[in-house]
Amino acid sequence: MSKYELIEVGQSASTSKTITEADILMYGAVSSDFNPVHFDSVYASGTMFKNRIAHGMLTAGLISAVLGTKLPGPGTVYLSQNLKFRAPVYIGDTIAAEVQVLEKIDGKNQIKLSTVCKNQNGKEVLTGEALVMLQV
Amino acid sequence: MSKYELIEVGQSASTSKTITEADILMYGAVSSDFNPVHFDSVYASGTMFKNRIAHGMLTAGLISAVLGTKLPGPGTVYLSQNLKFRAPVYIGDTIAAEVQVLEKIDGKNQIKLSTVCKNQNGKEVLTGEALVMLQV
Repeated sequence: MSKYELIEVGQSASTSKTITEADILMYGAVSSDFNPVHFDSVYASGTMFKNRIAHGMLTAGLISAVLGTKLPGPGTVYLSQNLKFRAPVYIGDTIAAEVQVLEKIDGKNQIKLSTVCKNQNGKEVLTGEALVMLQV
Repeated sequence: MSKYELIEVGQSASTSKTITEADILMYGAVSSDFNPVHFDSVYASGTMFKNRIAHGMLTAGLISAVLGTKLPGPGTVYLSQNLKFRAPVYIGDTIAAEVQVLEKIDGKNQIKLSTVCKNQNGKEVLTGEALVMLQV
């Protein structure tokens, strides 16, 4: 059976990671996103977040990691992703990204998955859906 | 006038960046996304992409960079983002990310923007829309 055929609706996978100071620095270097809310404690203390927060797209990368390495895993072609940023992620937070198969689109080798990131308190910080294709 | 009031529908901003080997390595370290299509030339040569590609979410980070540093700039709270990955990005490609104000949602201080990333040949590699809020 092909990798696509082996995947079942309801199947899930996850990964987790603690967001560190080094992650923020490296992500800034990669993305060119030097918004002071990520780097400047004094500036951040004056925002609604009160402290420096991680880039939302840094958290979103954990979803891509699960899709690309676990479910469906290598061979996955990312077609689309919707993201809702629901709560801030702070340095030191441990984020669990979980994906679950919602639907298989036969004939197109496409799979729709729910994508949720939660912090160490179980709070949803990021939700959305992904559409991927498996290479044949 | 507040920062929100100064923003006009149709206004746009952009940033561009050449994607390097170092970016792929750093993004892998930050995201834990070690899908071999990003790191293993031999594996990648057997895929539909023929060569190693950048992580799609790495490209998406350039959108966040424009939103967080230029338009609307610091003070932006990321609420949601839709992403369609339309074409692969290879090491050495120069990606321009452009955002344009589509709509202002008065009373909520929210702004909807189109978000497009193109490569050095003008090909759209990533499209979508963002919804952000400006802190008051």
